[in-house]
Amino acid sequence: MKIVTYRENQAEKLGLVVKHKIYPCLSLDPNLPSSLLELLKQGDEGLDPLKLYQERIELGEFQELGILLEEAELLAPLPNPPSFRDAYAFRQHVATSRANRGLEMIPEFDQFPVFYFSNHQAIQGPGKVYGMPRHFEHLDFELEVAIVINKTGRNIKASEADEYIGGFMILNDVSARTLQMEEMKLNLGPAKGKDFTSAFGPYFVTKDELIGFLRDPKEGHVGNTYNLNMTCKVNGTLLSAGNLSDMDWTFAEIIERVSYGVTLYPGDIIGSGTVGTGCLLELNGTGKRSNPDYQEQWLNPGDIVEMEVTGLGVLINEMVLTEE
Amino acid sequence: MKIVTYRENQAEKLGLVVKHKIYPCLSLDPNLPSSLLELLKQGDEGLDPLKLYQERIELGEFQELGILLEEAELLAPLPNPPSFRDAYAFRQHVATSRANRGLEMIPEFDQFPVFYFSNHQAIQGPGKVYGMPRHFEHLDFELEVAIVINKTGRNIKASEADEYIGGFMILNDVSARTLQMEEMKLNLGPAKGKDFTSAFGPYFVTKDELIGFLRDPKEGHVGNTYNLNMTCKVNGTLLSAGNLSDMDWTFAEIIERVSYGVTLYPGDIIGSGTVGTGCLLELNGTGKRSNPDYQEQWLNPGDIVEMEVTGLGVLINEMVLTEE
Repeated sequence: MKIVTYRENQAEKLGLVVKHKIYPCLSLDPNLPSSLLELLKQGDEGLDPLKLYQERIELGEFQELGILLEEAELLAPLPNPPSFRDAYAFRQHVATSRANRGLEMIPEFDQFPVFYFSNHQAIQGPGKVYGMPRHFEHLDFELEVAIVINKTGRNIKASEADEYIGGFMILNDVSARTLQMEEMKLNLGPAKGKDFTSAFGPYFVTKDELIGFLRDPKEGHVGNTYNLNMTCKVNGTLLSAGNLSDMDWTFAEIIERVSYGVTLYPGDIIGSGTVGTGCLLELNGTGKRSNPDYQEQWLNPGDIVEMEVTGLGVLINEMVLTEE
Repeated sequence: MKIVTYRENQAEKLGLVVKHKIYPCLSLDPNLPSSLLELLKQGDEGLDPLKLYQERIELGEFQELGILLEEAELLAPLPNPPSFRDAYAFRQHVATSRANRGLEMIPEFDQFPVFYFSNHQAIQGPGKVYGMPRHFEHLDFELEVAIVINKTGRNIKASEADEYIGGFMILNDVSARTLQMEEMKLNLGPAKGKDFTSAFGPYFVTKDELIGFLRDPKEGHVGNTYNLNMTCKVNGTLLSAGNLSDMDWTFAEIIERVSYGVTLYPGDIIGSGTVGTGCLLELNGTGKRSNPDYQEQWLNPGDIVEMEVTGLGVLINEMVLTEE
């Protein structure tokens, strides 16, 4: 299923997407959950009633409730997640980014998956991304896929961890590179470079939708990967192209790492990290390494960033300069 | 005022501390807030009714409601904060830690205050700190003071930022150094090294309690500092001694940084970073630098860590090994 959160008459509403239309959950049935967080807290079982309504919609019922997807104001599928971690799962991105800085690949990358906590209080969906003047100093996108947890768990083994994933979303981990590079010299990781917004959506896609794309993980790894093409265009020009199955660390292994001695809760979001070629920082570095006259590209006000992932839809964001 | 959260009959309760006794807020008056988060959302004005009750208790009323502080099961003053950032404000700690690793002081330290997001879902109060086996590989304390925000704000200037502080707590930013040092090689900052617990308390102390300790900031800085002695003992031995006024970056300046293009909410916690001498990592490094035969000390199961800060009380935690 594809599920959206949208705003209508100042209220946040949960909707089921069927054939490019949104069916408001509470209009289908007042007993359905009113938010994605409420749905996630019900675990996989929470999806069963929604599946029945989806079948009935597909059979022609409830047509009068459908809202055209294009006409709805989509928010982040999960506008107020309890937490947001971002991982670093794609070896190619890490190796290329390091090579661009003249650094060898770091052996620890292959020993354990790392992550950092980002700002779960600054989550948005499709549409305008507001950046302050300092954010537009080398503003960048990062093409990622995020999972959402739908069971409480702790010390979860990778072999069982896929069961804790409720679904998937595209993630644009918007990054202000000047702020990020300055602060990272002090070794606390990225914070101001990433904290002003992270864009998710357009849908929350349940795990069962992706069964046809399942792949085995890379050798020596545990857990599912998915054969999903990932692309990013800026102003219509294709810049990034990868595949979710290129992840070296699986989401299952990341969950094992994250949950060591730590409780995970329904609604917790974990990003994959950037896919290879999935940001301007990497692309600019690669370009300059092969051609000293390469012209760096960064995001400017008015730029349109369009991310597409097989099965997960298209996430479109416009960069907007703000002073507040 | 000193405010605590404690557990009684499986319920979390908010209490006002007067002369070593806790007075349950809802027993004093069912219209008082039932949690610290609820109180913080009312801003400074929320404290006014509590102040009146404090005066009446001091005059001898409500004595039958008092619970001995020693007999209560104290939780973190704010058990479920909406977020938790930790800063890096004490130059001495940073400079000594770097010198111990043979590194010069980094100029960026003096250009802007840095911080990272930590796990706001793993907050605890006084009492047992549970660590898994890997956490006990070089387990450490960090002696800090944390502030709690009590107003929503964005792009807050340092000159006005002290008004956004609701109060203060002692913070023991418990750290698993082996995990932390391994993961930090990948440049995303500390995560697994810090995510299993952070201990706060015993009280939330409102800003007005500390007026007598106010000091000007260091030259070139903006905002309040406070003349509060900070000490840490392990198993009764004094190891760390500093003062909150040694902060180079003030909390006000940290708030300005944190809130650049980002909204802060009531209940958001921001830690000061470790005071000079305030952790074993720094003390061990300094010891070994002056004496190659220096015996490193780390925390072991059963160790008692006792942090005291003028006006903020004493936070006592026992280290406990767990497998789950």
